[in-house]
Amino acid sequence: MTYLSEVTFAQKPGECLLNILGSMDYTGLYLVYPADRGNMLLQTLDIKGADIVKIPIQDSEETKTVETTISIWRQLLENNANRNSILINLGGGVTTDTGGFAAACYMRGIRHINIPTTLLACVDASTGGKTGVNLDGIKNIAGAFHKPVTSIISPCFFSTLPPRELLSGWGEVLKHSLLESAECTARYLSMNPFALSEEEWLRVIQESVALKQRVVTEDPYEHGIRRMLNLGHTAGHALEALLINRDGGKDMVSHGHSVAIGLVTALVLSTLHCGFESAWLHRMATRIKELYPAPKFNCKDYDELLRLMHHDKKNRESENVNFSLLHAPGVPAPPFPVTDSDICSALDITRDLLGA
Amino acid sequence: MTYLSEVTFAQKPGECLLNILGSMDYTGLYLVYPADRGNMLLQTLDIKGADIVKIPIQDSEETKTVETTISIWRQLLENNANRNSILINLGGGVTTDTGGFAAACYMRGIRHINIPTTLLACVDASTGGKTGVNLDGIKNIAGAFHKPVTSIISPCFFSTLPPRELLSGWGEVLKHSLLESAECTARYLSMNPFALSEEEWLRVIQESVALKQRVVTEDPYEHGIRRMLNLGHTAGHALEALLINRDGGKDMVSHGHSVAIGLVTALVLSTLHCGFESAWLHRMATRIKELYPAPKFNCKDYDELLRLMHHDKKNRESENVNFSLLHAPGVPAPPFPVTDSDICSALDITRDLLGA
Repeated sequence: MTYLSEVTFAQKPGECLLNILGSMDYTGLYLVYPADRGNMLLQTLDIKGADIVKIPIQDSEETKTVETTISIWRQLLENNANRNSILINLGGGVTTDTGGFAAACYMRGIRHINIPTTLLACVDASTGGKTGVNLDGIKNIAGAFHKPVTSIISPCFFSTLPPRELLSGWGEVLKHSLLESAECTARYLSMNPFALSEEEWLRVIQESVALKQRVVTEDPYEHGIRRMLNLGHTAGHALEALLINRDGGKDMVSHGHSVAIGLVTALVLSTLHCGFESAWLHRMATRIKELYPAPKFNCKDYDELLRLMHHDKKNRESENVNFSLLHAPGVPAPPFPVTDSDICSALDITRDLLGA
Repeated sequence: MTYLSEVTFAQKPGECLLNILGSMDYTGLYLVYPADRGNMLLQTLDIKGADIVKIPIQDSEETKTVETTISIWRQLLENNANRNSILINLGGGVTTDTGGFAAACYMRGIRHINIPTTLLACVDASTGGKTGVNLDGIKNIAGAFHKPVTSIISPCFFSTLPPRELLSGWGEVLKHSLLESAECTARYLSMNPFALSEEEWLRVIQESVALKQRVVTEDPYEHGIRRMLNLGHTAGHALEALLINRDGGKDMVSHGHSVAIGLVTALVLSTLHCGFESAWLHRMATRIKELYPAPKFNCKDYDELLRLMHHDKKNRESENVNFSLLHAPGVPAPPFPVTDSDICSALDITRDLLGA
């Protein structure tokens, strides 16, 4: 079998996909994609004539469920997919997470290829082999580590992304810059995600993917330093879950937006507990406030946010919530157990800094 | 961490479990067990006083589903199970397969300990790390490879098994003997599973487990020789699925019973295609006819049986069905593609030999 690197950068993703498939032995191709944007994505991918069974899914955080996974399994089964079949996931992170989980467990694991079409999915979901779906509103409760054959990454899909989607990915990009170095953080703080050329995008994605690959290679099953990738995610996930369920989702924030807010909370806690320089906190918070609309939550939401954080899977202690924090940009601290009252103070300061 | 072998043989399984747990670092213990036999099994296990959250499930082939898995995930979540928790599965193969799958995918994988309580689960499900549940009546469509910390095996649970259950396990024991050697096959053909002492049981289980471990170690992901463990399972699985769904399940056969029947079909095909000596086929068929009631199927069922076999996950070719066959006892052949018409002939001869 041809060696494929975990991520394949391509100008023409369709051509790239067909080349890769040409070097593989398989029985049956299956394509999972978001029903609502399917035509547009398939047009951009451009693989007309390929013999592929199409499996459209609802592509939203609310339908990132075991039920959607079951519907994929059922369509694979009805269309005679077997252990030698290949599943292709074309879409955002919800599609690659759900389709990846379906592949991980169909007949105890079949091969899959991801073609992430959003910035978020390119920088976040394309490496590391994490797959998963939500249960009862709690994120990624059911999932598996299952690496794709490769993820084909192409900025050609970005031109069609709405600003909200670009900003969602940008939250993860900012996170990666903070984990990388002070130089990188400063550079990304000065970039405008709405005015990047295709070459600049490629560099941004490559840097982000390279950082994530370095971390994941050292710790594939998240027993140690991979946890630092959760920077911003503890408060972020909780806020995302809170706002998805409230008032029919009218105040909903995207994943990357919630991570951006969670980054501010994590940096507040980092200044409090890890000697993180507050100037960086203020620069990051200012930029996030410029780019993103102010999130809608207040102190009445804290009880529910705390409950959600305690449920989050990264926590071993029942008393405190473990946070990934930083000593400085590029210098992560070990998981830090934070008390409920410190979390509430950090949320107060976060709201203050972001005008929430 | 203490090294634990894949299978731990124990006179007193409860004491053994507590010893093992004493050497491990964990947060929270959870016990999956069959609701209908739970009290009896817990009494035999005897771990009174241990702080364990109990998760009863329906323990039948019909409820070996994703829905049951979801109910386990939900109870784990509601009772604050996290990545550092341990799931204990106490029961037959349905419990260890379903609970094992729940553990494999809860928060992308938590540790589990199996305590198989039936002969079938001891010889079949205790090694190899296979977990899985059925979808739409097709066996193990959703599953994962996920090894338990260890499987604690004790014949003390057997004294309470009904004859049907013992015979179910015996089908797999006969299969293992055929894969082992002519000497072993002859010895097992002369044994009476209803008159074995606890010591004899221990030897039977140890031999069976040892064979399976040897095969699985060589081929953990079933890319090659592990497929020989499917001997008897291609026709067996199809028959099991057929009879489960027919007439409200009144003609249902146990898993091991269906494997025993499937063994006869596989040996018929082995004489036809692989030079297998027909005397062994006749000795095996005679013994199976003595031990098990005649299965209820006839030539009108062949279409459905063929459909089920073509769906079975071990098949790569759409035209023919791959069978695991033998050249002789102890001498497996590579996967052999069999035509539908040869399968029908083999089913005819199987019915004839077993009086079906």
